[in-house]
Amino acid sequence: MTDRTAPDRVRTIACVGAGVIGGGWVAYFLAHGFRVRAWDPAPDAEPRLRTLVEAAWPALAELGLATGAGPENLTVTRELAEAVAGADYVQESAPEQLDLKRRLLADIDAVTPEHVVIGSSTSGYGMTEMAADAASGHRLVVAHPFNPPYLIPLVEVVGGERTAEAVVMWTAEFLRHVGKSVIVMDQEVPGFIANRLQEALWREALHMVANGEATPAQIDASIIDGPGLRWAFHGPMLTFHLAGGPGGMAQMLDHFGPSLLSPWTRLDAPELTQELRDSVVTGTEDAAAGRSIADLVRERDRRLVDVLRVLGKVPGGS
Amino acid sequence: MTDRTAPDRVRTIACVGAGVIGGGWVAYFLAHGFRVRAWDPAPDAEPRLRTLVEAAWPALAELGLATGAGPENLTVTRELAEAVAGADYVQESAPEQLDLKRRLLADIDAVTPEHVVIGSSTSGYGMTEMAADAASGHRLVVAHPFNPPYLIPLVEVVGGERTAEAVVMWTAEFLRHVGKSVIVMDQEVPGFIANRLQEALWREALHMVANGEATPAQIDASIIDGPGLRWAFHGPMLTFHLAGGPGGMAQMLDHFGPSLLSPWTRLDAPELTQELRDSVVTGTEDAAAGRSIADLVRERDRRLVDVLRVLGKVPGGS
Repeated sequence: MTDRTAPDRVRTIACVGAGVIGGGWVAYFLAHGFRVRAWDPAPDAEPRLRTLVEAAWPALAELGLATGAGPENLTVTRELAEAVAGADYVQESAPEQLDLKRRLLADIDAVTPEHVVIGSSTSGYGMTEMAADAASGHRLVVAHPFNPPYLIPLVEVVGGERTAEAVVMWTAEFLRHVGKSVIVMDQEVPGFIANRLQEALWREALHMVANGEATPAQIDASIIDGPGLRWAFHGPMLTFHLAGGPGGMAQMLDHFGPSLLSPWTRLDAPELTQELRDSVVTGTEDAAAGRSIADLVRERDRRLVDVLRVLGKVPGGS
Repeated sequence: MTDRTAPDRVRTIACVGAGVIGGGWVAYFLAHGFRVRAWDPAPDAEPRLRTLVEAAWPALAELGLATGAGPENLTVTRELAEAVAGADYVQESAPEQLDLKRRLLADIDAVTPEHVVIGSSTSGYGMTEMAADAASGHRLVVAHPFNPPYLIPLVEVVGGERTAEAVVMWTAEFLRHVGKSVIVMDQEVPGFIANRLQEALWREALHMVANGEATPAQIDASIIDGPGLRWAFHGPMLTFHLAGGPGGMAQMLDHFGPSLLSPWTRLDAPELTQELRDSVVTGTEDAAAGRSIADLVRERDRRLVDVLRVLGKVPGGS
């Protein structure tokens, strides 16, 4: 149908918008050996971008650079059409304003060759609403990274109503090929997955500060010396899978389900129907991917020791 | 007022309840060189407890054992009075049922010498309601750990209405002395701090599963390859401090505050009053503890590289 470049043959990437997120993508793609063409309307965009790339480079170098990778493969231009000319993929990372995104994506779409996929770094808008003014909505897709995009692996990929399924698949394949951890979502949900979860925690934190229940420093300490240590390798589902003892998530939900109704947090709990209970139990088994509770406990302890040591958090002796 | 043992002179600890949490405390205290006397009503309590300690020991040994530390310093008894006799501190870790906790704390209180502090591992109840039936409520205090208590540093310490301020301070000092990261709370809040935050995220996750918006495996992947990596060393406040660019949290709240009202998550956002804005900005500066945004970015990148490497998550090359 199209002469789209194969995901493993991409050589040139256009990055539209070169702030903290766009610049992070630039650094990541440069480190992986791509030619990058960046566009940003700010007068000082180029020096700011080069400073950001320079600051990111030591970390990227430590993780390993591709052959021929280097900041010299970056071109910054003031002409949008010039940036996207010759690109095999376009990553848009403009400020998070719907009107601006909608106009910019239409502009990018108008000057980018038809076969090229255009991904958006939006942290919360759906592509259906963002692509409203673009002619070829089929090749517009959300590819949402986390800050800093040059170090955090996660990218959430989700299409809008007009996005071609093949475009979603191409984007996932391309990003996995360059080392990203990709989640393909089946439906548009505001905030996608990780930002919704992060935002629920953030809102509860703001409520606690507003009510004088905890200070920001206490909130941060409670995460980094508590559940945050586990969340670097076991997500909330596997964490509770282990909290239930040998019976895992099933035991957890069947025995502690009622405590869901306790007035912890200001977010109402969903009704724990049999269907939800079964979805969580089965889905958690999928997440465990064959690892028994005992396996997961050993894995947890080994990784906690590694993380505590690498972060210099080994508890002192008595 | 009392002949309470000085926090750095504690030698013997009674652990009441020896399940996953109580047993985790036992392992931690043993590794730090204490004599531990455990009580649990389950018929198979002793073999289960010794198995748990054995499983925890390699991790504890890797982090460093105190002189003379060893599983041989553990005594398991079926008599509550025998367990607490001679103890300098009592840690209660019974199942999370209010009636049971209330009765058990009254029983412990009745047989424990007056000068000994009794801490509870409760994950959500306040000491005011738990101590209702105890005669000497002044020496009962919440000391809430995270699973597994032998590796996660966090302990939240908070008294009830009758708890003496000196008891809260003694408990914080003792736990810090044995290497714990202690947060002392000024007021009783259901779920304390970290569990409220964790629970808000968990409830949003359950809503997403209930609505078919994400699978448990996607939820876990979104955390462990995304924000969870940062949360091992920078909490939500410092994370957003860095998301705001050079202007930090102030810029973040002033520019992105309105997006708080976006329909992300099912938890209503608090009103971003000037007072809340200022509390968050000032409190985040406190959490930053003199580190500039540039310092924090360097720290974040260095620690992310360390965590990614130690977890074997270095993104592959292209």
